[in-house]
Amino acid sequence: MIEYIKPMDIENRSFEIITELLGDRKLDPENELVIKRAIHTTADFDYVDNLAFSEHAVTKGLEALQNGCDIVTDTQMAKSGINKTILASLGGEVHCFMSDPDVGSEAKERGVTRAIVSMEHAARLEKPCIFAIGNAPTALITLHDMIKEKKIAPALIIGVPVGFVNVIESKELIMECDVPYIVARGRKGGSNVAAAICNALLYQLRR
Amino acid sequence: MIEYIKPMDIENRSFEIITELLGDRKLDPENELVIKRAIHTTADFDYVDNLAFSEHAVTKGLEALQNGCDIVTDTQMAKSGINKTILASLGGEVHCFMSDPDVGSEAKERGVTRAIVSMEHAARLEKPCIFAIGNAPTALITLHDMIKEKKIAPALIIGVPVGFVNVIESKELIMECDVPYIVARGRKGGSNVAAAICNALLYQLRR
Repeated sequence: MIEYIKPMDIENRSFEIITELLGDRKLDPENELVIKRAIHTTADFDYVDNLAFSEHAVTKGLEALQNGCDIVTDTQMAKSGINKTILASLGGEVHCFMSDPDVGSEAKERGVTRAIVSMEHAARLEKPCIFAIGNAPTALITLHDMIKEKKIAPALIIGVPVGFVNVIESKELIMECDVPYIVARGRKGGSNVAAAICNALLYQLRR
Repeated sequence: MIEYIKPMDIENRSFEIITELLGDRKLDPENELVIKRAIHTTADFDYVDNLAFSEHAVTKGLEALQNGCDIVTDTQMAKSGINKTILASLGGEVHCFMSDPDVGSEAKERGVTRAIVSMEHAARLEKPCIFAIGNAPTALITLHDMIKEKKIAPALIIGVPVGFVNVIESKELIMECDVPYIVARGRKGGSNVAAAICNALLYQLRR
């Protein structure tokens, strides 16, 4: 028998169930809402163990959003999952350059991924940015290189590509950078997880 | 050391790794590409066990797409993840009614979810449709009710909501219907999985 429950109550009840299922497992209060929202989005409790946070990454992400930073994604899917209403109320917007015709043609000409060219385009944005990368290891590798070359200083990198080729390595590169990061170590992640982590921050700033 | 690999080679190599990691596990050849693409999208091998297929669901889905059917999603995120180029080449398009202002106002007035109203709107489409539901249990419950009342006859239901409230039950309801289905039993799924399953079908029809 299925009982009809209102949408907002569903979300509250879901977080209660996640808390119950976590049992005695204690989460760092600063990171708790991010971890629980990643679980809420995937029903996968592996995120309790695989999410790695640089020191006060969440606080730094919240401060950047409060100051009106933008978000850059590596997929339209992540862009479409982010709560753009709250982001706009703070003065920010989401960019995804992946489908831009000039990105496609430049990537083809240079024989590189569109993700690489997209990150280079994002580096030219004049506002501080959070990078939410749920798909392309080459996006993280390019961010790493540009950070090392001091071409870019992201407010926060959400590094959660999913997959089997260069995924683990690209996330480890980001964890070597002197930059605030939230990374899903290992193979798991995705555009949905990238969007969920952005939303976990944004919902804390809802007015 | 990260080696640069071309995007198409990454996908091929990813599927090789998935096949290696599956080891001796034999998959039904009809369902194999769907299962592997769900794993490719999540890096989660639980999909080997939790994906349930009604008899020849994949073949029926492929036939419907080849005949130009449309796809209805319950999130903009799933819509944005589906390969619309291949779908258009077959004569189909993707609909998501969730953000339509009239859906929002009707849902508010009736005190029901937007997913319920969206599915009722979709039932008025004159073309055969595949429903790709990665988020809302109430979408599946409404589809179940409309199927039982013979108001709708979906070409295929991809029933993969994720979550903790009514999710498992809503998927079981769909498996009781006389309708082709691909369902992720249990709590797991998501808009990314819904889009991945659509794409696993579409890529088999790429010209």
